[in-house]
Amino acid sequence: MPQHPADPADVFAWIDAAESVRERAGLVRTLRPRPPVSPLLDLASNDYLGLSRHPETVRGAREAAECWGAGATGSRLVTGTTELHAELERELAAFCGFEAALVLSSGYAANLAAVTALSDRGTLVVSDAGNHASIVDGCRLSRAATAVVPHSDPDAARKALAAHEGRTLLVSDSVFSVDGDAAPLAGYDAVCREEGAALLVDDAHGLGVLGEGGRGALHAAGLAGAPHVVATLTLSKSLGSQGGAVLGPAKVIRHLVNTARTFIFDTGLAPAAAGAALASLRLLRREPERADRAREVAGRLYGRLTASGLTAARPDAAVVSVRAPSASAALRWAADCREAGLSVGCFRPPSVPDGISRLRLTARADLTGDEIDRAVTTIVRAAPAGAVDC
Amino acid sequence: MPQHPADPADVFAWIDAAESVRERAGLVRTLRPRPPVSPLLDLASNDYLGLSRHPETVRGAREAAECWGAGATGSRLVTGTTELHAELERELAAFCGFEAALVLSSGYAANLAAVTALSDRGTLVVSDAGNHASIVDGCRLSRAATAVVPHSDPDAARKALAAHEGRTLLVSDSVFSVDGDAAPLAGYDAVCREEGAALLVDDAHGLGVLGEGGRGALHAAGLAGAPHVVATLTLSKSLGSQGGAVLGPAKVIRHLVNTARTFIFDTGLAPAAAGAALASLRLLRREPERADRAREVAGRLYGRLTASGLTAARPDAAVVSVRAPSASAALRWAADCREAGLSVGCFRPPSVPDGISRLRLTARADLTGDEIDRAVTTIVRAAPAGAVDC
Repeated sequence: MPQHPADPADVFAWIDAAESVRERAGLVRTLRPRPPVSPLLDLASNDYLGLSRHPETVRGAREAAECWGAGATGSRLVTGTTELHAELERELAAFCGFEAALVLSSGYAANLAAVTALSDRGTLVVSDAGNHASIVDGCRLSRAATAVVPHSDPDAARKALAAHEGRTLLVSDSVFSVDGDAAPLAGYDAVCREEGAALLVDDAHGLGVLGEGGRGALHAAGLAGAPHVVATLTLSKSLGSQGGAVLGPAKVIRHLVNTARTFIFDTGLAPAAAGAALASLRLLRREPERADRAREVAGRLYGRLTASGLTAARPDAAVVSVRAPSASAALRWAADCREAGLSVGCFRPPSVPDGISRLRLTARADLTGDEIDRAVTTIVRAAPAGAVDC
Repeated sequence: MPQHPADPADVFAWIDAAESVRERAGLVRTLRPRPPVSPLLDLASNDYLGLSRHPETVRGAREAAECWGAGATGSRLVTGTTELHAELERELAAFCGFEAALVLSSGYAANLAAVTALSDRGTLVVSDAGNHASIVDGCRLSRAATAVVPHSDPDAARKALAAHEGRTLLVSDSVFSVDGDAAPLAGYDAVCREEGAALLVDDAHGLGVLGEGGRGALHAAGLAGAPHVVATLTLSKSLGSQGGAVLGPAKVIRHLVNTARTFIFDTGLAPAAAGAALASLRLLRREPERADRAREVAGRLYGRLTASGLTAARPDAAVVSVRAPSASAALRWAADCREAGLSVGCFRPPSVPDGISRLRLTARADLTGDEIDRAVTTIVRAAPAGAVDC
């Protein structure tokens, strides 16, 4: 094959080859558009509190679009900041216990912003091996050196931090998306204090689920508002909307406003998304029991599934991860569940850090007892040979 | 100062120093939240067609939120793809003349996705020096080598492409955001054909403004749908919403679905944003004269301002960039305009590629003759000493 194709039609011939490889490995992903009202019971979304369709959240979206228009119309630094964005930032910061907040168009953008703005050429970023793709990409984008350390191992983090002369930043998810396990935040904080490092925690899966009334993992750990701690959040999970945020000391937020490229060069979050997130936040403040309920549902799912012999990680938040014997078995298992009316996540390589395929269940706070029964029965019945004790 | 602060309160002391530097240079950026109904005449947003508050666009947002919920609830690969996303993708691709489209949560995410998924370790990405930050970050994130070539110089691009043995990708904005000038797309295409390179064009500022009925710069250049051409778009400018898209051959889109991290690991675009963009797109198809009108307004602004002695780049689309003698003069100029009821963009280092500060005006299609008069009079009256022929 010539390296420089003479015919423009051959320029993407390499994609055909890549597609064949994926097909042979059984790893082809396709999009499956869902209808407005799905016949499936949803244990696959990250809508942990079931707020994405809550009338108050939807009204927040609608009223914001009507009041502010369908788009932010520009960068937050030009025309893209409305009083609604400022209100959301004040209430998010106050709720989670931080001095200030900055809202971006996605959690992905928030992590890219935080990692790059808090590091420079002389910095070492120490990153937990289980961190989300957006943190990994933030490390790649930053000018800093990165040390990836074993998952949830504060001692390994300490060693990496101590070995560096210049500025240091330790970054971790609070709850890891794939297995639903919580990071050792107290341990990570202790090594940061000892080593004089900043601590950046992505609380995407903690907000709305962990801490008093869903204030998040950092609030639960007593770390919210500490002078060396910065959090990132997403508005698209427990808050049922879209967008991301960075929370921390006011000067950190000012620094992001002035330097974070995914903030400066991106259109501001759409008013409807900001309005929906704000409505959900107020609802959660009024009904703090929603957070407890999500954790309770996760515990019940875990208990019932493991009692049936399946292998699952004990959930620290609202994600229950069930091991599958192989990628193809996981795919078939999820398809069989779907056939039986249940939507579950199916995580396979390359979306898993350790090569182990899983069903990923989310324990929505608004699942009824009957729905939990139905979900467990369906998953157990559809379990492939080898799923028990795998 | 110790490299590893003993007190957590000192961990971000370096930010204080960075803030002082910015203050001394007069380069501090602050957010200015706007009220629902601004008293200012807007020549600063990227709402080129004035659709962000159009009743049909707003209704698109509202109805989508009511039908589909406030959030997509998960990755597009899990629960985040609705029939609405698929509909928007079909209509976007058809309108712009491409085989397929993929919608992401922002134009920034679309550029990161396209650049990284279309390159690998053996690829050379040749990038125009004027490209948007999101393309620059895409190059940094990719495993490819990058050659930044002089702005709008196909010969320079040819030399860079010819010097590489492996796969090559030429990437450019169609309309450069800062000066509003158009890329030499025919020239870029010719060198891609000669050198067997793929061509990736960010048409963020072309969609809705250039080409027949606003079909974009690639459609205008006869390149839409070519087998070696991929486009990225934003839904947040002419379409008045939020989000981004990648358009190209179906196999390129399938490849992105399987490999693009900012697609796979991000929550899908909120239904309200997808619904608003779709409503705007349908409106534009019905009222193609909106695109012509935006260019006409830009031409009038340019003619009137340069006739007054100001220095502006001839607009190729809907951005009119007026030179300022210095960053502080630009800031004062924009502030004086604002004082007089006119909102204009003010681009200063580090948001400009060449260090030259500018007022950046956007020529909205729905500006009236009176509004254009008022804008020109205000800008000319507020012009600082040295702005004429600077």
